[in-house]
Amino acid sequence: MIRGSTELVAIVGSPIAQVKSPENFNTWFAANGRDLAMIAIDLRDNALDAFLASLRGWRNLRGCVVTVPYKQSLAGRLDGLSARAAALRSVNVIRRDADGRLLGDNVDGEGFLNAARAQGFDARGKRALVLGAGGVGSAIAYALAEAGVSRLLLADPGAERLSALAELLGKAFPALTIDTGYASLEGLDLLVNASPVGMGDSGELPLPAALLDGLRPATLVADVVTAPEITPLLAAARARGCAIQSGAQMARAQLGNLGAFMGVTPLEI
Amino acid sequence: MIRGSTELVAIVGSPIAQVKSPENFNTWFAANGRDLAMIAIDLRDNALDAFLASLRGWRNLRGCVVTVPYKQSLAGRLDGLSARAAALRSVNVIRRDADGRLLGDNVDGEGFLNAARAQGFDARGKRALVLGAGGVGSAIAYALAEAGVSRLLLADPGAERLSALAELLGKAFPALTIDTGYASLEGLDLLVNASPVGMGDSGELPLPAALLDGLRPATLVADVVTAPEITPLLAAARARGCAIQSGAQMARAQLGNLGAFMGVTPLEI
Repeated sequence: MIRGSTELVAIVGSPIAQVKSPENFNTWFAANGRDLAMIAIDLRDNALDAFLASLRGWRNLRGCVVTVPYKQSLAGRLDGLSARAAALRSVNVIRRDADGRLLGDNVDGEGFLNAARAQGFDARGKRALVLGAGGVGSAIAYALAEAGVSRLLLADPGAERLSALAELLGKAFPALTIDTGYASLEGLDLLVNASPVGMGDSGELPLPAALLDGLRPATLVADVVTAPEITPLLAAARARGCAIQSGAQMARAQLGNLGAFMGVTPLEI
Repeated sequence: MIRGSTELVAIVGSPIAQVKSPENFNTWFAANGRDLAMIAIDLRDNALDAFLASLRGWRNLRGCVVTVPYKQSLAGRLDGLSARAAALRSVNVIRRDADGRLLGDNVDGEGFLNAARAQGFDARGKRALVLGAGGVGSAIAYALAEAGVSRLLLADPGAERLSALAELLGKAFPALTIDTGYASLEGLDLLVNASPVGMGDSGELPLPAALLDGLRPATLVADVVTAPEITPLLAAARARGCAIQSGAQMARAQLGNLGAFMGVTPLEI
């Protein structure tokens, strides 16, 4: 139970009722006897500056996870950023230092890689296709590049953000081969849907259904969508004998990264 | 456990670890199956404006209890005040309306009266001495006047705030007899310590010890200090056969007023 002495972490976004981080963290805090709790904050977009200013003065708050739609808008307003958060111009976690300074990082890519590694995936020298060049897709692409993929295929209906991501990655990882677009799924080691397509009960696929015939069982197929846990893409991949990775697995796999950055859990939880 | 869907109320002050409201409210929320939680916020004084601006945009926050030292400083910055909060220039609770407007009230006096009523005390026509003309003392004096005491004796080492309180009450309650100062405890129906004297293990009394000889058993003796629960004043009063009322009883008695103003509990809890 929360008491006057309880230290806090938060998750901020809008809407917020659907997020799973509070129950994941609060279960861990309770099981480990920590006087800590995570709260969920549904914040209007016109209150972002005020929110950050109040965090700087909020002595018993250790940090804040950032979710949709504020990962980009908050990144430019903090007091310091990790190299990857600065490159991505996107944060998904903020630490409040004892002096009130707010430092940001983005561990979406780490969470993705942790989950993939748990399935035996080693990124070095591999070919990966990332569908979606938004915040999460960019973070995953950056992490894959950092982990040593040799070829990265990127796709997004938004030509501008697609070329911006390709340019960013090209500068940061000069040895990497980057394609903006793809014609088939053949020869892929990893296929990631990092777009919202497949969310809810739309039944939609994030790629042309005809291309699924080219999917080989050795390809790991991952989705960032968390509801449903088994998206139409993951169902189709499983039917073709592929190993799959859900958005829930990715979210679970980055809890320790988030908690460690805020200083409230070890890296492995 | 707090989830993404959990609505919040807060208590803000500094320091905050000692407050009991979170466990009182969270126990009630849990026992009544409400998806609500109270958090405690230790806020720097330079973040008050930012904090209020973030509350206005904080969609899943219903309200905020205000404690020391921010009852006065927050009162002047809200979007609306109850008549008594406006008169006292002090709030101890804020409600966030659905449109983000922040409305303030002060139910310290109601809490005091609720606890006294539970002991059979009826303020009408009575004589009461209130020691301390700070925020809580002022709220209690105002509530006693509103409830119909005929004579109110006020005392405070700070001459300025003592005369300010007497003037405020004189304007609001023209029929009331007000004395600033007292020579004995004889003839009192109620004696209230609303000063911090007696807090901790100081062992101090908020009045000259010699006056205690004039205390009659029919006088209800109350203290707002919560730690220790039985202050030196309450111990002395009990030894003389007086009924006593502790700061913890007063705090417990106003929970329903606080919760009802924020819209998260009925008035009687």
